[in-house]
Amino acid sequence: MVVDASNMHTVIKGFPEQCKRALGLAKGIIVSSEITSIVICGMGGSGISGDLLKMYMAKSKIPVFTVRDYVVPEFVDQYTLVVAISYSGNTEETLSAFADAKERGATLVAITSGGQLAGKCQKVIRVPGDLQPRAALGYLFFSLLGLLYNSSIIEVFNDDINEMLHILGDPKALEEKGEEIAKRLYGTIPVVYSSASFSAIAKRWQTQINENAKYAAFHSTFSEMNHNEINSFMHMEKGTFSSIILKDRKDHRAVKRRMSICKEVMEKKTEVIEIDILGSSLLARMMYAVHLADYVSYHLALRERIDPTPVEVIEWLKKQLVE
Amino acid sequence: MVVDASNMHTVIKGFPEQCKRALGLAKGIIVSSEITSIVICGMGGSGISGDLLKMYMAKSKIPVFTVRDYVVPEFVDQYTLVVAISYSGNTEETLSAFADAKERGATLVAITSGGQLAGKCQKVIRVPGDLQPRAALGYLFFSLLGLLYNSSIIEVFNDDINEMLHILGDPKALEEKGEEIAKRLYGTIPVVYSSASFSAIAKRWQTQINENAKYAAFHSTFSEMNHNEINSFMHMEKGTFSSIILKDRKDHRAVKRRMSICKEVMEKKTEVIEIDILGSSLLARMMYAVHLADYVSYHLALRERIDPTPVEVIEWLKKQLVE
Repeated sequence: MVVDASNMHTVIKGFPEQCKRALGLAKGIIVSSEITSIVICGMGGSGISGDLLKMYMAKSKIPVFTVRDYVVPEFVDQYTLVVAISYSGNTEETLSAFADAKERGATLVAITSGGQLAGKCQKVIRVPGDLQPRAALGYLFFSLLGLLYNSSIIEVFNDDINEMLHILGDPKALEEKGEEIAKRLYGTIPVVYSSASFSAIAKRWQTQINENAKYAAFHSTFSEMNHNEINSFMHMEKGTFSSIILKDRKDHRAVKRRMSICKEVMEKKTEVIEIDILGSSLLARMMYAVHLADYVSYHLALRERIDPTPVEVIEWLKKQLVE
Repeated sequence: MVVDASNMHTVIKGFPEQCKRALGLAKGIIVSSEITSIVICGMGGSGISGDLLKMYMAKSKIPVFTVRDYVVPEFVDQYTLVVAISYSGNTEETLSAFADAKERGATLVAITSGGQLAGKCQKVIRVPGDLQPRAALGYLFFSLLGLLYNSSIIEVFNDDINEMLHILGDPKALEEKGEEIAKRLYGTIPVVYSSASFSAIAKRWQTQINENAKYAAFHSTFSEMNHNEINSFMHMEKGTFSSIILKDRKDHRAVKRRMSICKEVMEKKTEVIEIDILGSSLLARMMYAVHLADYVSYHLALRERIDPTPVEVIEWLKKQLVE
């Protein structure tokens, strides 16, 4: 089978440019800075932006919640900013959660390329269409940051953007690293570990592998895994899984220590791939780790001789649901 | 190898009695009902009580956060009730998060059998010692409920308790069901699915299997898995995984529909085990599903000829960390 993977490759290469363009997409869209919490509703490739925002705003006094459900939490009221993110604009769960939030009188913004959602919300950030939702992450996440910046909810971050673009500016190095990791993962079930702070990134690695390579994969966090999952390494069959450890320079020193000690246990049964996340600012580190997963999952797909772009099961499922 | 699993069996059988006794353990411990959020700090078998509380209080205006980390969220202040749960009282992460919460002036309560934590907190709920933390769930969770009931943060729930005890009052039926499920799971990697609302229960299933049976297992939610993980079923090797679907009567009708449609895809590659969660009140349904996992993981351990009680890797890890 000859696989034409050029489409996804082009889109992946365009990720840094997407992030840059996206910041301007929220132009003119502002919400009150008096909000007391932020709820991001979205599923799959759209929803992950909520997890990334939660991570990015971990040091803020404003708590960020992600909703992957048909309803929003009970506390949602006029002081809650609810951002519904649906790339297609037609995601069943997000439309339902959006309606629930509207009924509760929340401050509403939608981020979408169109669909029903665009027609239901007064404040809409429109992103360019015709991509797979997961491949539009740059548009979705950075337009969300643009909205919060416009609304004075997050502060100036030009230096961080510049550092990020600098680090993402070497696609050759990123792709080589991604290809090398894919080679090591190939034929195993990858489990991606990170600190609790970086769990959004570990989840993105999992789902990119699920969707691009159509591969089973899982993710988990340190040090929670030390309290349960680590036991399974004792009796597992050697070579079934591989362990990817995402290591961030700002991980708590105790987490670093645990990662290093656990490696000893993990290596007995799995290939252990340690990833040192590059970058200085949080934004740069986040996006380096996110983008590396694009190349890893892309090259896993090539090794499987699978076109990374179409997600046939999801399309089939959508058809079943409307029948 | 002859395995003496009688200890864990006795403890599992005592779970309903544990829940009943635990309600009284919080006697005399009260916090202000003026709090605006609840943060539960805890790891592993202690931390799961936080997830269960979040699930139990989903319809409350007070948001519940779980922390499996060395620090608490930035928003924590005097209006936040922080409950540190550590069965041993010596859990590194929980002691660190507790100290962080104290510095932020939070309202503090500890639930523990002793250890350092007992000496660091003014309000301590003491639970009986000498169990594995995961086997003390009844004590930990129900004393937490007792605290919130005493403090008028949750309402009277005697009927729910009675219904729960009635449903848990047939250990023979529960054990037979658990054993039958273990038989079907044996030799596969179990992935436990639930609605987003029941994710705490799916996590408990995973970790009970990890710790009692020393078995790799994972968990995930509907409908998020429809947006990524479902793709991996296309190319996975038949029989590698098994799929457990926890079905609750109150699941959103769209979630029920998705579970039923996806079963078709999942059955092609995995054994699909559907669990109809018994009970009427939320508490009864939660505890039925929690307790069933005790028996499933216990019988998986027996099939593997593994003593379910000791968790050698965790003990080894703890020793490494203090060196």
